[in-house]
Amino acid sequence: MWGIIATWRMAVEGITEADKMLKNGADSGDAIEVAIKEVENFPYYKSVGYGGLPNEEMEVELDAAYMDGDTLDIGAVAAIKDYANPISIARRLSHEKVNCMLVGEGAEKFAHKEGFERKNMLTDRAKIHYKNRVKEVQQQEIKPYSGHDTVGMVCLDTHGKMTAATSTSGLFMKKKGRVGDSPISGSGFYVDSKIGGASATGLGEDLMKGCISYEIVRLMKEGKHPQEACEIAVNNLDEELKARRGKAGDLSLIAMNNKGEWGVATNIEGFSFAVATENEEPIVYLTKNVNGKCIHEVASQEWLDNYMKTRTAPLEEK
Amino acid sequence: MWGIIATWRMAVEGITEADKMLKNGADSGDAIEVAIKEVENFPYYKSVGYGGLPNEEMEVELDAAYMDGDTLDIGAVAAIKDYANPISIARRLSHEKVNCMLVGEGAEKFAHKEGFERKNMLTDRAKIHYKNRVKEVQQQEIKPYSGHDTVGMVCLDTHGKMTAATSTSGLFMKKKGRVGDSPISGSGFYVDSKIGGASATGLGEDLMKGCISYEIVRLMKEGKHPQEACEIAVNNLDEELKARRGKAGDLSLIAMNNKGEWGVATNIEGFSFAVATENEEPIVYLTKNVNGKCIHEVASQEWLDNYMKTRTAPLEEK
Repeated sequence: MWGIIATWRMAVEGITEADKMLKNGADSGDAIEVAIKEVENFPYYKSVGYGGLPNEEMEVELDAAYMDGDTLDIGAVAAIKDYANPISIARRLSHEKVNCMLVGEGAEKFAHKEGFERKNMLTDRAKIHYKNRVKEVQQQEIKPYSGHDTVGMVCLDTHGKMTAATSTSGLFMKKKGRVGDSPISGSGFYVDSKIGGASATGLGEDLMKGCISYEIVRLMKEGKHPQEACEIAVNNLDEELKARRGKAGDLSLIAMNNKGEWGVATNIEGFSFAVATENEEPIVYLTKNVNGKCIHEVASQEWLDNYMKTRTAPLEEK
Repeated sequence: MWGIIATWRMAVEGITEADKMLKNGADSGDAIEVAIKEVENFPYYKSVGYGGLPNEEMEVELDAAYMDGDTLDIGAVAAIKDYANPISIARRLSHEKVNCMLVGEGAEKFAHKEGFERKNMLTDRAKIHYKNRVKEVQQQEIKPYSGHDTVGMVCLDTHGKMTAATSTSGLFMKKKGRVGDSPISGSGFYVDSKIGGASATGLGEDLMKGCISYEIVRLMKEGKHPQEACEIAVNNLDEELKARRGKAGDLSLIAMNNKGEWGVATNIEGFSFAVATENEEPIVYLTKNVNGKCIHEVASQEWLDNYMKTRTAPLEEK
């Protein structure tokens, strides 16, 4: 068996590449890196890699992480600027004995010494989004973007090795140096080849309060199906946050176990995700939470066409 | 009931202050901040705050985190330079709606705007340690310090509110920007006032592989005593790491539940910790792991005298 599952529609091109590799016996580390890079490189996705929306100071600061489910090796970068593929730097760091999570200038120095490609990650479209937002909020306090489009993936290869990876530009208009859940072990991602893996997208500050990716893997270890594990973890954290704070931020989770079975849960409307396994071609689903049960529907061609049309539509400065 | 427990002998002055406050009904957030600041401010402790050992580039980069067990609010800073009390910045960040974890220059900018005290955190003693280490390893590759003296605390106040907090300068000779477990929710710390809290010290890269502070709180939620929860989590992670990687880094954990019961476990020799509760005066213990059970002995006066003597001994450049 092999399989790969990922947050959001934007991951489908990446997992399609990974699917071809996995079918031919590729390593799950290689496959997930290729899949994430595909998302990082596509300039029209506003929340990951090139084209990602900038922070308060109009700098694109990126977070990424990689975890190997065999060894539990973790590599992560946070608040890194001007590198094309944060996921590859994170994966490289996962091979270090120590110093596996680097942030800011230290992460940039490491990447430079290791020969990773430098790239100005701020696109013209991202600048227009930034300038328009600044105008929109001129009379108010600048508030971060409420969207949450981190790409997070879990991958199983034919050898039984599992990996998890994330990549994001984080909240639009975030403060310089802000780090969300994406590079944080247990919150943004977790994987154990003996069990399975999970990855999150949503409000990082709330996802971190529940160590939710770790919790889902733990529930799978107890024997829960990934779908049940995701629903239990998302519903519980959503309830706890509402009980204690009056509200819960967006929480959307994907998971796959070491048999290639997968699950997804969310507390928002219209969360999309992409999945491919030995048994199913790459496909995009939309999911919704109906009284605690998450129902997945295949995305219609109309929805898919509209998705790409709105992403690539001409953008004008207001 | 009230109580506070902390990693290492170095925390005893801090928890003694906190103990006085808690006795008089102080808030556990105020008490734990005072306790951590005491450690940060003492110049002879080489691994926390002022006097902490520098990174590869002879810069003191600090990590700290604060968690409120009532609201699950988390604040954290990582790789921050030149601020006297990272714990206070972390606590301040825990009150923000988003942007609660800041790293590097972004964290420094925030702290500056909020009026936190700037301070050159590199002491003459730390410089001598750095220069001596550079000479020692001149013929070898520079290897990070194998010690792991993060201060981590869990605190319960008379109102039933619990908090957790950490502060560290991380690995000696770490790479610039390196972040360990200390500011990472679920790994370096976790607390839930309904259950209890835990905090870690050790090799951050390995502690992150098990989300071990979260796991201990979860085991306490299942009804385990903090001592049993700590032993299960430390022994399991130690075994998993050895099975998969051939070895495990240092793992030492402290925990307290919401009844003021506490527990400690370690996989090293001679881990020291400090504790005070309604039922016991501030005291330092030494613990060792004997076939999976951790045995705590009150530190002798001789050990305590020797501890402070070696910390404050004159230091010469080699």
